Amino acid sequence: MRFETVRWSGEIPGRIRLLDQTRLPLEQVYVELDSVELLRDAIRALVVRGAPAIGVAAAYGAVLAAQERLDAPPRALSEHVIAACARLASARPTAVNLAWALRRMQARLALEAARVPTSRELARVLLGEARELHAEDARACLRMGELGARFLADGDGVLTHCNAGALATGGIGSALAPIYHAHAAGKRLRVFADETRPLLQGARLTAWELAKAGIEVTLITDNMAASVLARGTIDAVFVGADRIARNGDVANKIGTYGVAILAREHKVPFYVVAPLSTFDPDTPDGASIPIEERDGSEVARGFGPRTAPEGVRVFNPAFDVTPARLVTGIVTEVGVIREPDRARVEAALRKGGRL
Amino acid sequence: MRFETVRWSGEIPGRIRLLDQTRLPLEQVYVELDSVELLRDAIRALVVRGAPAIGVAAAYGAVLAAQERLDAPPRALSEHVIAACARLASARPTAVNLAWALRRMQARLALEAARVPTSRELARVLLGEARELHAEDARACLRMGELGARFLADGDGVLTHCNAGALATGGIGSALAPIYHAHAAGKRLRVFADETRPLLQGARLTAWELAKAGIEVTLITDNMAASVLARGTIDAVFVGADRIARNGDVANKIGTYGVAILAREHKVPFYVVAPLSTFDPDTPDGASIPIEERDGSEVARGFGPRTAPEGVRVFNPAFDVTPARLVTGIVTEVGVIREPDRARVEAALRKGGRL
Repeated sequence: MRFETVRWSGEIPGRIRLLDQTRLPLEQVYVELDSVELLRDAIRALVVRGAPAIGVAAAYGAVLAAQERLDAPPRALSEHVIAACARLASARPTAVNLAWALRRMQARLALEAARVPTSRELARVLLGEARELHAEDARACLRMGELGARFLADGDGVLTHCNAGALATGGIGSALAPIYHAHAAGKRLRVFADETRPLLQGARLTAWELAKAGIEVTLITDNMAASVLARGTIDAVFVGADRIARNGDVANKIGTYGVAILAREHKVPFYVVAPLSTFDPDTPDGASIPIEERDGSEVARGFGPRTAPEGVRVFNPAFDVTPARLVTGIVTEVGVIREPDRARVEAALRKGGRL
Repeated sequence: MRFETVRWSGEIPGRIRLLDQTRLPLEQVYVELDSVELLRDAIRALVVRGAPAIGVAAAYGAVLAAQERLDAPPRALSEHVIAACARLASARPTAVNLAWALRRMQARLALEAARVPTSRELARVLLGEARELHAEDARACLRMGELGARFLADGDGVLTHCNAGALATGGIGSALAPIYHAHAAGKRLRVFADETRPLLQGARLTAWELAKAGIEVTLITDNMAASVLARGTIDAVFVGADRIARNGDVANKIGTYGVAILAREHKVPFYVVAPLSTFDPDTPDGASIPIEERDGSEVARGFGPRTAPEGVRVFNPAFDVTPARLVTGIVTEVGVIREPDRARVEAALRKGGRL
């Protein structure tokens, strides 16, 4: 990839460097953050977005918190990191990777706090943990790419929604990983990218990263997906996920549920690609997933000028839930969960050591 | 209505006055046009849009053409009107009301040309015909409103796509007519308006005209329709049409087909509201309807600033086709065609004297 979505810059002390996704595709600009509050703001403002990428950024956020107490005793550092994790976890409610990464950082902290003598050393250990989590995410992307590419043949048309690519993960992406893998193996693909209102992650991010990689991509508005499917040009749908419940229901960017229904109607397989870190064993089903609602201005004045009457009522849920019955398979780093249900999801989680 | 979509201003000579819909909702501005070429440009630029409104405007366009030859002999006037009608008919390919209105004007011209002695008198006759066509459209809207309102109960939630309201017709609208009628009868409705990318007719026009009429309207992006349907808040879907084939297949604004599939999935009735002038007995089925493709810039820089990478490939069909099997009923001025098929469409056309 010719860009880096999330990176730790330096050692201890260091900074988080993020590719500012709010400025794509017009500018490829990086921002460096040295405080938990700045990171929290960046996550809320979608400077970094995509469930796995948020998880990676949050893990480094715990390191930022530790750095804020390098000169304090280890106990004070621990307390500060725990408080910072709670603060970061509340930045966005739906993507479960955020909470998962922060729990993992806190678990490591709890384990090491007793035996590591200095705060500086403790911060170094946390940085090591965050880097390992980041590397695992990148490896998971590669494996999902390999497994998902088996569903793609030379010449296939693929529909995707939102951005679940390298910009959304610590690696080559979730939903786009099979596309990158197949492309690298010489398969020619035609990707159709839903622009994904209101924030146009498909237009701004997916079209940008696929074009950069030399993959043919055609941009459509969300409401054209049905037409494109009806024309028979789509062989598979690939999307990412923000949280997958224990029964296989999938929360993902608003519009995903509609695409799943349209895919079923046109007998096109619908694949969700997500690492195990996106699964939440504590969420029994889709109805239990909290759905973030964002400000109506994202809809009413999407890109500068006002495009709706003053004072209009707006409903702006950021995610929706696709029931497991509409999902052909969930591609994870430990294998493909075909026709997901509770038993099959639990089997995959057990295989991955998450249950 | 506190605005007029299309009006003939003056007598002979006079002008066409259009509410400039490209400037809504920010400004309520009227433009006056005194030539066929200006009108053709206005239709192409969507200053006036909506199949019935385009038909009405085109009928007045034939009068503009006649005015351009007031001082020539009637034969020269006739030839000029016929050429102008061909020019206007090519402005937009999908909406069949355009061709229908122009054929009707030419039929009247052919009938009268022999017996009307002067060009001025011939122009007056054409103006009378255009005014009658306009009045018929307004009456059809009222009748569709009355018939369609029977499907709406107090407290109902209604989903609509694009704009098929007073801004799209010579009267109170097609899809929105039942809503206006039910509202006037004291039924409280909650309308959800798809914003309708790329040109946001739902956000800019439907939300504007419903709010102006004091009807509760909530704006959503197109990809939220599935979520809103899943929440059980929608009791009926009402949309307009740009052309209805003889077998009941419906061409309408891009995205309508997807909404129809989603409505069926959620067991919500899906009504198309359209006057007989939108039916084309010469189009056997949806596959025969020409679908206008518009410039990709509508998608890639829809809101002013560029929101997709430079040079990205865009697919931008302006319409799609909803097969008759997904339509619960087509509300026309001569009655509701339930579960439309060729025989039922033909029966309605016969009843309306169109076959």
